[in-house]
Amino acid sequence: MKRRQFLQTAGAGLVAGTVASPAIAQSAPEIRWRLTSSYPKSLDTIYGGAEVLARAVSEATDGRFQIQVFAAGEIVPSLQALDAVQNGTVEMCHSAPYFYVGKDPTFAFGTAVPFGLNTRQQNAWFNHADGMTLLNELFGRFGAYGLPGGNTTAQMGGWFRKEIKTVDDLKGLKMRIGGLGGQVLARLGVVPQQIAGGDIYPALEKGSLDAAEWAGPYDDEKLGFQKVAPYYYYPGFWEGGASIHFFINKAKWEELPKNYQAIVRQAAAFANADMMEKYDARNPAALKSLVAGGAQLRPFSQDILEAAFKATSEIFDEIAARNDLFKRTYESMKRFRNDEYLWWQVCEYTYDNFMIRNRTRG
Amino acid sequence: MKRRQFLQTAGAGLVAGTVASPAIAQSAPEIRWRLTSSYPKSLDTIYGGAEVLARAVSEATDGRFQIQVFAAGEIVPSLQALDAVQNGTVEMCHSAPYFYVGKDPTFAFGTAVPFGLNTRQQNAWFNHADGMTLLNELFGRFGAYGLPGGNTTAQMGGWFRKEIKTVDDLKGLKMRIGGLGGQVLARLGVVPQQIAGGDIYPALEKGSLDAAEWAGPYDDEKLGFQKVAPYYYYPGFWEGGASIHFFINKAKWEELPKNYQAIVRQAAAFANADMMEKYDARNPAALKSLVAGGAQLRPFSQDILEAAFKATSEIFDEIAARNDLFKRTYESMKRFRNDEYLWWQVCEYTYDNFMIRNRTRG
Repeated sequence: MKRRQFLQTAGAGLVAGTVASPAIAQSAPEIRWRLTSSYPKSLDTIYGGAEVLARAVSEATDGRFQIQVFAAGEIVPSLQALDAVQNGTVEMCHSAPYFYVGKDPTFAFGTAVPFGLNTRQQNAWFNHADGMTLLNELFGRFGAYGLPGGNTTAQMGGWFRKEIKTVDDLKGLKMRIGGLGGQVLARLGVVPQQIAGGDIYPALEKGSLDAAEWAGPYDDEKLGFQKVAPYYYYPGFWEGGASIHFFINKAKWEELPKNYQAIVRQAAAFANADMMEKYDARNPAALKSLVAGGAQLRPFSQDILEAAFKATSEIFDEIAARNDLFKRTYESMKRFRNDEYLWWQVCEYTYDNFMIRNRTRG
Repeated sequence: MKRRQFLQTAGAGLVAGTVASPAIAQSAPEIRWRLTSSYPKSLDTIYGGAEVLARAVSEATDGRFQIQVFAAGEIVPSLQALDAVQNGTVEMCHSAPYFYVGKDPTFAFGTAVPFGLNTRQQNAWFNHADGMTLLNELFGRFGAYGLPGGNTTAQMGGWFRKEIKTVDDLKGLKMRIGGLGGQVLARLGVVPQQIAGGDIYPALEKGSLDAAEWAGPYDDEKLGFQKVAPYYYYPGFWEGGASIHFFINKAKWEELPKNYQAIVRQAAAFANADMMEKYDARNPAALKSLVAGGAQLRPFSQDILEAAFKATSEIFDEIAARNDLFKRTYESMKRFRNDEYLWWQVCEYTYDNFMIRNRTRG
């Protein structure tokens, strides 16, 4: 009650000020929004992306625009965050578009698709090619406006109880993996499983699960999988740079004063870069700690990667044949990817190549 | 005069509003700053970074905080931008810290050093390790507060009239290159030259210059070097990810209301990511165009890279022995680099490796 009274008083003050300086009154209203995250607080880097945005917006508006962040499950379940935005339960959410491939497989391009763009390329495609235009055509069908809001960077391929050397070794393997990555691995003989985070460890321990993908070293370290499934494969070819988005209810977005829209856009861009930087800063120490704790690093073999690449192309062509927006988005991403890796192989890759070879000398 | 009258009227309005809503009056003053860029408008991506920041700040404040951007030379020469900030000629500038290695070689770490961090690693070191803390200790000695404000991504090694296959081929070569990269190449026999951008082409054409480094494909394409020095070498090992900064006069920064500081910080982060994304989006097409126009792509040989790496370590150890802040910054960067490339070689690099090998199949 007291808060409400305060807001009303402040509102009255605003109106009084309006007479002399209309720009301020229009541009600095008191607004309170709720944001539901698809992540628990324990995944501090990815969950923290929403808090980074909320703090940035509050600081930029001197506390006049407050966004309260709720962890997954506090208001709505993790995978219903977009629905909650669409139906107005919350004004916005922080979630991974690929959670919603059941609504439309095109959502996958908003996060990561097998053999898609790496982190930097994806941000370039989003913001300086037609990535976000295509994705917002999709998001708009679900009453939402989307802004990129974080990236986990390239993920690992997950934890395996036994070594996987050939495509044959994948046959019949029960692996915790969802989405298009799961569909691709299914074509190679894997039996994809959907298991909640907390149930993975005991399932791997007793052997009812053979493998599980999660994220990268920093997040994986918290779950201790190296003790029960020590073979830690790379790269996670289904997530070369997994992007998280802020989804905002379209009507609520359009109601915002222009300067608040600008502040939210800039805060989202800040959160987008900040999450990538945090993962880049945090993954190395976690990787060392995991290896010290028993993780056995293993690369996927070239024949596994090539079989998965072939399966990906087949699946994507099938979906594209029946979904026009998926087709247009896929073709845009492929064109962009083709050009990007032409350039990457010349400069970025050769720089990293030399630096990796010389690492121990530095 | 009319503008001044308008400002006074708006200011009077603000005071009237203050009685009822003091927070607004404190947090939304009318402010006009001048920013001098170290770049000409023709380098639209890098010069544009300052305009991106200025527009973002204006939009977030509904036009109340205006930053007017001036190209290099309009107020002060390109390489005196930081001096103009320090002495208060302008409130801020957009410049490359390594232009100021003559004041202190530690400035180089603010942009790029030979065999330094790649673009992503550098942003992670700046913001989530002690990079910006160390750099702001340096910038503070020159009356400035710095914020990362753009990155060119990994640069090319420049244009050569003849093929360079061995370290011996570098001996006596007159090359347009400055800073620490020039010092490193000098140890390999190169004779570094300082020549303004517009003078490079005729010098290469008549042979008074043998080689020149500039930036990457998008910027290089504008100058047409492929017609007179067709061998286009990579990677530019002295700039694995060259960062541009906003320098703000410290007293002016501290005078800003807290919310304006937040807005500037977020706008700088937005501009920082935006420039990287633009170069990532624009370099591939420019590279194709350059090759179609006669550029001959060549990698530096391993023995050249290794000799340059050795020379870099020697030079850095010499500087570190006489400059404590350089030593601390170098050691911080080296530790960070060592960990980063340990992780990079596992996941990011192997992902890019497969994608490059499969590029033509996609």
